Amino acid sequence: MNAISSLSSLGEFGLIDLIRARFPQPAAPELGIGDDAALLSPSPGMQLVVSTDLLAEGVHFERSFGQLRLLGRKSLAVNLSDLAAMGARHRWFFLSLAIPPGFPLEDIEALLDGLAEQAAEHGVLLAGGDTCVSKSGLVISVTIMGEQRPELLLRRSGARPGDEIWVSGTLGDSALGLQLLLTGGDKKGDVATEYVVNRHLDPTPRCELGQTLAEVGLVSAMIDISDGLLADLGHICEQSGCGAAIELAQVPRSPQFAALAEATAPAFWQLMVAGGEDYELCFTAPAASRAAILQRAKTAGIPATVVGKVTDSGRVVAHLPDGSIFQPSSAGYTHF
Amino acid sequence: MNAISSLSSLGEFGLIDLIRARFPQPAAPELGIGDDAALLSPSPGMQLVVSTDLLAEGVHFERSFGQLRLLGRKSLAVNLSDLAAMGARHRWFFLSLAIPPGFPLEDIEALLDGLAEQAAEHGVLLAGGDTCVSKSGLVISVTIMGEQRPELLLRRSGARPGDEIWVSGTLGDSALGLQLLLTGGDKKGDVATEYVVNRHLDPTPRCELGQTLAEVGLVSAMIDISDGLLADLGHICEQSGCGAAIELAQVPRSPQFAALAEATAPAFWQLMVAGGEDYELCFTAPAASRAAILQRAKTAGIPATVVGKVTDSGRVVAHLPDGSIFQPSSAGYTHF
Repeated sequence: MNAISSLSSLGEFGLIDLIRARFPQPAAPELGIGDDAALLSPSPGMQLVVSTDLLAEGVHFERSFGQLRLLGRKSLAVNLSDLAAMGARHRWFFLSLAIPPGFPLEDIEALLDGLAEQAAEHGVLLAGGDTCVSKSGLVISVTIMGEQRPELLLRRSGARPGDEIWVSGTLGDSALGLQLLLTGGDKKGDVATEYVVNRHLDPTPRCELGQTLAEVGLVSAMIDISDGLLADLGHICEQSGCGAAIELAQVPRSPQFAALAEATAPAFWQLMVAGGEDYELCFTAPAASRAAILQRAKTAGIPATVVGKVTDSGRVVAHLPDGSIFQPSSAGYTHF
Repeated sequence: MNAISSLSSLGEFGLIDLIRARFPQPAAPELGIGDDAALLSPSPGMQLVVSTDLLAEGVHFERSFGQLRLLGRKSLAVNLSDLAAMGARHRWFFLSLAIPPGFPLEDIEALLDGLAEQAAEHGVLLAGGDTCVSKSGLVISVTIMGEQRPELLLRRSGARPGDEIWVSGTLGDSALGLQLLLTGGDKKGDVATEYVVNRHLDPTPRCELGQTLAEVGLVSAMIDISDGLLADLGHICEQSGCGAAIELAQVPRSPQFAALAEATAPAFWQLMVAGGEDYELCFTAPAASRAAILQRAKTAGIPATVVGKVTDSGRVVAHLPDGSIFQPSSAGYTHF
């Protein structure tokens, strides 16, 4: 049993020890936690790929949603997803925590356990970070670093008219899960509810699929879906100088989503393509790549589905099953 | 005149545009702001050096202290100082901001102006980041990346008994400045007060000196003084397996500090060696390096002073001018 129960009695160095104990240390001559900076050795000929995400209590998560372990997993998952979307191989991450003074020690330990689980599952090393007290809510800042051969990296700017538009997995589960959490609808206890709530609290970054698609050179542009398919596809179109036509009937949904979302029919398409936090991959590829992509997705164990085509229209258009044009009530998650 | 006066009317992409406009973009084929991740090319044969710092309102700074421009400068300065302490050359930084909804736009612009000034003065490129709303105070997370030839990097672990202990600049100014800010003593308006308050609000990272000392190979260990000389020297001793004897009479102080601190005599030594946030360098070197170090410091325009010796005692001892041992009331700044 641990006799220490509060952050202030633990102290900064006690907290650093708690963190250090959960993560394997980088091998010498690399230098991890404990000097002014971390020393890292990217592989020769590789381009360094770096992303950072800030998660703030009351904005990106509510402590009332429960398990801090899942929040730890998600904090790293969203960063892993950013690197997957470039087709990069993750290597190191940095963790900064601003923690409210009264934060229970067991919650900090659960948060660190979740981070450590996700790190171990994906083989990414904690290389450093910073900790301080927060006068307000919990803030988690993760910076992740990876690498890839420069010619293999997948940018948002490579889509060309005629390319097919793909998504991995199923969309809408996370947004529906969040809606149920916010409205108390998560208390039903049925399997479908648990599934979509878990997709919100514990998303799976598509690292293997993103890396494979980059390394086989079949794909022209890629992004991860954090703000909703329409918004994120909009980023590809903007940076590629093209447009997109999506057939909503083709957008893959889970049986759990289909079962639950019938009850909230008006929001059905909204949740699926404008809800956000799916952390699935959206990518574009010439039609000739189709069979090879399906084969790679099968190997990675993740469904991949064609949902539309890149056009030269300059805008993203989504067709409802009856052929009319879908108007989202807002084009994805807005941060302010 | 800017018609937009609040963050919510500006929006996330408006804020990103504000940021982008202030910082030169990395040259192609490197990819900066605007994809899932930044692509960076470390120089061949170099080790990558990475550090990160989180600054939280009410903990590391008070908005009532005034100019957000100086806070922007300091947010980057403390990270530059970490790389300087390794002898690394800074190249890129990542900026994440959690901003309270009612935060005045002119304050955000001032913060960004300060960051951009410091970045331009030191030639470090903004390569990416994240922004979100904060339900509480302003939080600033900076991750900085640099590089150096592996054999030149200065770790905390290289000090040897007999080495001389050096500090750059003068100590105590920042801690005294903070004390005056917290007690309202900064309202005097005299030149000395302004000087020490400015040393707290706008510290100067010793980048050139740190890089030069590493590259000429004269120095055995180095750290930057963020928690007070005694605490930070303690980290060198711990990791080098040695001790230290400091002669307080030799610790350099500014004329401004000497003039102001007489009035608060009991705190004199405390502020100077246990106050923190000096962001000067503390380093150890064989006595044979002395003349060469003084020459390099002169070239860099920063005083460097021998303040003691590395011992084999296993602890840090500071002697008062009368020969008795100084007992700090706490060994530097504690974060929790």
